Amino acid sequence: MENFIFHNPVKIIFGRGTERETGNHTARYGSRVLLHFGGGSIKRTGLYDVVTRSLQEAGVDTIELGGARPNPRLSLVREGISLCRREGVDFILAVGGGSVIDSAKAIAAGAVSDRDIWDYFANPQLEVPAALPLGVVLTLPATGSEASHMAVITNEELTLKRSIGSMHLIPRFSILNPELSVTLSPYQTACGCSDILSHLMERYFTQTEHVDLTDRLLEAAMKTILWCGPRALETPLDYDVRAEIMWTGTLAHNNLLDTGRISDWASHGIEHELSAEYDLAHGAGLSIITPAWMKYVRRAGMEKFVQFACRVFDVDLDFRNPEQIALEGIGRLEDWYRRMKLPVRLSEAGIGEGDLKRLAERSMVGKSSLGRFKVLTAGDVYEIYRLAL
Amino acid sequence: MENFIFHNPVKIIFGRGTERETGNHTARYGSRVLLHFGGGSIKRTGLYDVVTRSLQEAGVDTIELGGARPNPRLSLVREGISLCRREGVDFILAVGGGSVIDSAKAIAAGAVSDRDIWDYFANPQLEVPAALPLGVVLTLPATGSEASHMAVITNEELTLKRSIGSMHLIPRFSILNPELSVTLSPYQTACGCSDILSHLMERYFTQTEHVDLTDRLLEAAMKTILWCGPRALETPLDYDVRAEIMWTGTLAHNNLLDTGRISDWASHGIEHELSAEYDLAHGAGLSIITPAWMKYVRRAGMEKFVQFACRVFDVDLDFRNPEQIALEGIGRLEDWYRRMKLPVRLSEAGIGEGDLKRLAERSMVGKSSLGRFKVLTAGDVYEIYRLAL
Repeated sequence: MENFIFHNPVKIIFGRGTERETGNHTARYGSRVLLHFGGGSIKRTGLYDVVTRSLQEAGVDTIELGGARPNPRLSLVREGISLCRREGVDFILAVGGGSVIDSAKAIAAGAVSDRDIWDYFANPQLEVPAALPLGVVLTLPATGSEASHMAVITNEELTLKRSIGSMHLIPRFSILNPELSVTLSPYQTACGCSDILSHLMERYFTQTEHVDLTDRLLEAAMKTILWCGPRALETPLDYDVRAEIMWTGTLAHNNLLDTGRISDWASHGIEHELSAEYDLAHGAGLSIITPAWMKYVRRAGMEKFVQFACRVFDVDLDFRNPEQIALEGIGRLEDWYRRMKLPVRLSEAGIGEGDLKRLAERSMVGKSSLGRFKVLTAGDVYEIYRLAL
Repeated sequence: MENFIFHNPVKIIFGRGTERETGNHTARYGSRVLLHFGGGSIKRTGLYDVVTRSLQEAGVDTIELGGARPNPRLSLVREGISLCRREGVDFILAVGGGSVIDSAKAIAAGAVSDRDIWDYFANPQLEVPAALPLGVVLTLPATGSEASHMAVITNEELTLKRSIGSMHLIPRFSILNPELSVTLSPYQTACGCSDILSHLMERYFTQTEHVDLTDRLLEAAMKTILWCGPRALETPLDYDVRAEIMWTGTLAHNNLLDTGRISDWASHGIEHELSAEYDLAHGAGLSIITPAWMKYVRRAGMEKFVQFACRVFDVDLDFRNPEQIALEGIGRLEDWYRRMKLPVRLSEAGIGEGDLKRLAERSMVGKSSLGRFKVLTAGDVYEIYRLAL
């Protein structure tokens, strides 16, 4: 086990009806709030009315900025930063899914920084010095941004998707009502589950030894998603299933489950080039890339793939043939993605060989390598794309 | 799943050599510190020197109070409270195990309260309004107090062991170096593992339905303790085993693993009377009481006991006979306690029938019942004591 520091002070308010408390939680931190949201679905579902009424009753002034999209854009972030400065905003409330939250985080950091916000994304070694405090009302369990220190933004001019991380970006509170997620489409639900599962797998596949507890906790969380994902497609209105998915999504990415271990993150990096280029949903990109990554890197740590197959997918085959066990585990993961109606090959998403070389090169921009389980070059990334064809 | 709030802002600093940073972490919160410790083992091991040097280098004034004992005493707490007031202490640093930390927490609350500190223990409905900030250097993984909001104190005049809970009692930071735990005796190690396992089981046995994720996380943590406990007795100097136990001990009791579920706590309540009366180690009391509690309450939720047997202890028997599966699970738990050289019957601890009726009555003082999985009366508690004879 590696030495680590774990510190996640977000306050989670979880359960039915909790969004009605938004105003009280917000008023503890700010009096002039930027209400940030997405394409307007929160107006159709009535969440917008509940939240704005709650803010009003708590005596909080509100400035609105909608329009955050999946793979959130730098241009809107810059607009939000100007708005915050002009209006003297002291708190940001993100109401939506991961894209809205990440956009809000970037605005929060940019609003109190002299530098252009993209500088921090372009230079991972630059530390984010401060940010406005922010809160979350979550509608879509997927990215885990509601309790993470991370934000991912797409620079649409450069077609680059990059991330920042800072303690200042951990929300002060996150309101998680699983009822708000029952209106998600089957595809949004599936993509969310895929993203959550990926956050767990990126942490699971490590070369760090003696990580028994976190291995088992990760397996526990993976098994929960593997069980609940298909249930959410079959019975979308089932509160209990939505609740399991939402809480798993938060714990998958709040840094608890990689304490003492070195995570991989290659699949996320390789996928980001796809979703930046084709505007593919992140979760659908991950269901394509992850099995290909696994096939490519498995010999770098066969025991881990055997453990994954046996413990997570109950593979029960001849232990003298670990390769067979590992491949069966990967096969069952692909089966699960198919059951979730997600693509497992680039061709299923209409992507051919054409741009892969360029995307592989671009995945290395600003980095010397990708991944920690097996350290990958642009050439490796290209081979992984080809395995996914 | 029940609605819940989860908020645990403790900063965990985990790993080899981390105690050398004590001064820097302390100096963020206070300049005049009460250094609270136990019977002096930290002087023998050299930890005292490392910590005091670190505090000195960070420019922190230190007032010392040693002498905290297992089942920490109210009289020492009162002495600490007077000392803090007299010396203008603004931060409390607990260096030791759960007894030292709980003693420090009670001092922290008492030092800023007009009421006598025991009032809060005697009246669970009284809210602890404030406390001095506190930090921890942990030497003995067991109680989870290093990240919990709870403290347990024994009133030696009344022979009562009672607890308080408050957000104000969550430490600001806890330094967890597993190296510090390799000097523990086999018995201390075993008692610590027993306490950790009990914190997991108290949460596991719930009547709350649809708690898939936390069920599995609890099983993951239980399996880690069941594996690592005997390893720590066999190879006491093994850092990796000590690290798993220490981190599991913290996560077993930081309230994450009972999010959305109603925990039981009857075994702890029933045990507290034993350790208050006989000064038995808490972990040894739990290894006696828990199997008896399980046998007594199992019919109140047979499915949960079957799940426990199958998932945690790999029981693989005829599913048409759940009773048999449940009892085999309890039997394997007893086997494990024996392997850890812990008593599983009162007679093994030299306790006879004599006082059991009185202890059962006393376990109800200030309460109307005990436990939530099955609600217990004093009569039930007496039957459980008798099952443990």
